[in-house]
Amino acid sequence: MEKNIITISRQFGSGGRTIAKGVAEKLGYDYYDKELIEKVAEMTGFDPKYIEENGEYAPGKSIFSLASSFISASRVMGGMSAYDYLWVVQRNAIIEIADKGNCVIVGRCADYILKDYPNALHVYIHAPMEARAERIVKRYGESDKKPEDRLKEKDSKRSVNYKHFTGNVWGDSRNYDLCLNSDKLTIKKCIEVICDFATMEWGTGKQV
Amino acid sequence: MEKNIITISRQFGSGGRTIAKGVAEKLGYDYYDKELIEKVAEMTGFDPKYIEENGEYAPGKSIFSLASSFISASRVMGGMSAYDYLWVVQRNAIIEIADKGNCVIVGRCADYILKDYPNALHVYIHAPMEARAERIVKRYGESDKKPEDRLKEKDSKRSVNYKHFTGNVWGDSRNYDLCLNSDKLTIKKCIEVICDFATMEWGTGKQV
Repeated sequence: MEKNIITISRQFGSGGRTIAKGVAEKLGYDYYDKELIEKVAEMTGFDPKYIEENGEYAPGKSIFSLASSFISASRVMGGMSAYDYLWVVQRNAIIEIADKGNCVIVGRCADYILKDYPNALHVYIHAPMEARAERIVKRYGESDKKPEDRLKEKDSKRSVNYKHFTGNVWGDSRNYDLCLNSDKLTIKKCIEVICDFATMEWGTGKQV
Repeated sequence: MEKNIITISRQFGSGGRTIAKGVAEKLGYDYYDKELIEKVAEMTGFDPKYIEENGEYAPGKSIFSLASSFISASRVMGGMSAYDYLWVVQRNAIIEIADKGNCVIVGRCADYILKDYPNALHVYIHAPMEARAERIVKRYGESDKKPEDRLKEKDSKRSVNYKHFTGNVWGDSRNYDLCLNSDKLTIKKCIEVICDFATMEWGTGKQV
C-alpha cells in the first residue's frame, strides 16, 4: 500500500488542530503536532517550549530566553543560528515521519517540505478574525491583550517564518491542494472532506 | 427557500470554467460567465469583446482599441475611466443576478462583491503551471507565445485587476471559503465537493 501523508497548516484559532486530530482518528493515521515537537527535542536537546515557540514563528523575545537549551545544542549547530538549526532538524524530522507514511502533520511548513511527495495532500484551514477571536477566548481564556491583537501577532510571526524558509506567501491557496474556511464549512464537514480526498486516488492529474 | 450563490474564481487553464458549468448543471442553478458579459454589454453598450478583455484583466493594449464602444458609452460614464465604469456596471449586474439567487457566477471579483451575502459560497480553482499549460494547448491550441508565458500574462493581469478593485491579493485563500487544486483533486471531484458544500446548511458558523 502506498503511503499517504496529510499536512495541515492553519491560522491560529481556526480549529485546524481539532480538524487535524479528527482526520487522523477517522483514518487511523499517526498524528504529529506536539509529538513532532517531542521528536525534535530529542534530536536537538532543545527545550520543547523553545521549539513550540520558534519552530513555526519568526523569532520574538523568546529566542534567547531558553539559554540552557541553546547552550546544550550549540556544539552541533555548526555555525548556524539556533533558528536556522531548528529549521534543519525539524525538516529532517518531518521527512523521517513522512517516509513512514500514513500520517497527519500539523504546521511547521510541512506543506513546503513535502511539496514533491506524490502521496501528500496539503491542506490549509482558515477562518475570519471574529470567529477565531471567539474560539481562542473559549479555548485559552482571556488575557491582557485583546484576542484580535493576539491573533494578528501570531499570524504575522507565522507568516514571516514561512516566507523566510520557503520564499512563499503563507496562506496563498496555490501552496495547498485544499483550503477551507472552517467557520463557514464547519469543523465536522472539514474533517469529512479531507478524509474523502485522502481516500481517493491521489496525484493522478486525471481530468474529466 | 433561501437563495444560494456560488462564485467561482479561477486561474486561467485550471479547468475552473468546466467545474463551474458542471456545478451549475448538477444543482440546476443559473450559470453566468459569457451570460454576464452579454448582460453588461446590454447595460453599457460596450462591445462584448471589450468586456471580456477588460472586465477582469488589468488594461493592456486593448483598452483603447474598441473606440466605437468606448464612445457610445462615454455619455453615461460621468467622468470615470472606461475601466472604472465597466467595474461599476459589472458590479451592479452581479448584485442583480445574486438577488435572483440559485446561480453560479464565474470570475469578475464576484467573491469580493458578494462577500457579505450569507448564502454565498466562494470558491477558487487553481492548478500547477505545467498542468495548466497542457490544458490550454489542448483547449485553445498553440500560439506564437509559449503557453507558460500566456499563463503568466493572464495571471498577472487578473491579479492587478483584483488588487485594484478589491485591495486584496488574488488567490489568497482567505478571500474564499474553498480553494481546490483541480490537477490534484480532479475536475470531477471538485464538482462533487462544491455541490456537497452548496447543499449543506450555510453560514451557520456551527463548530463541533
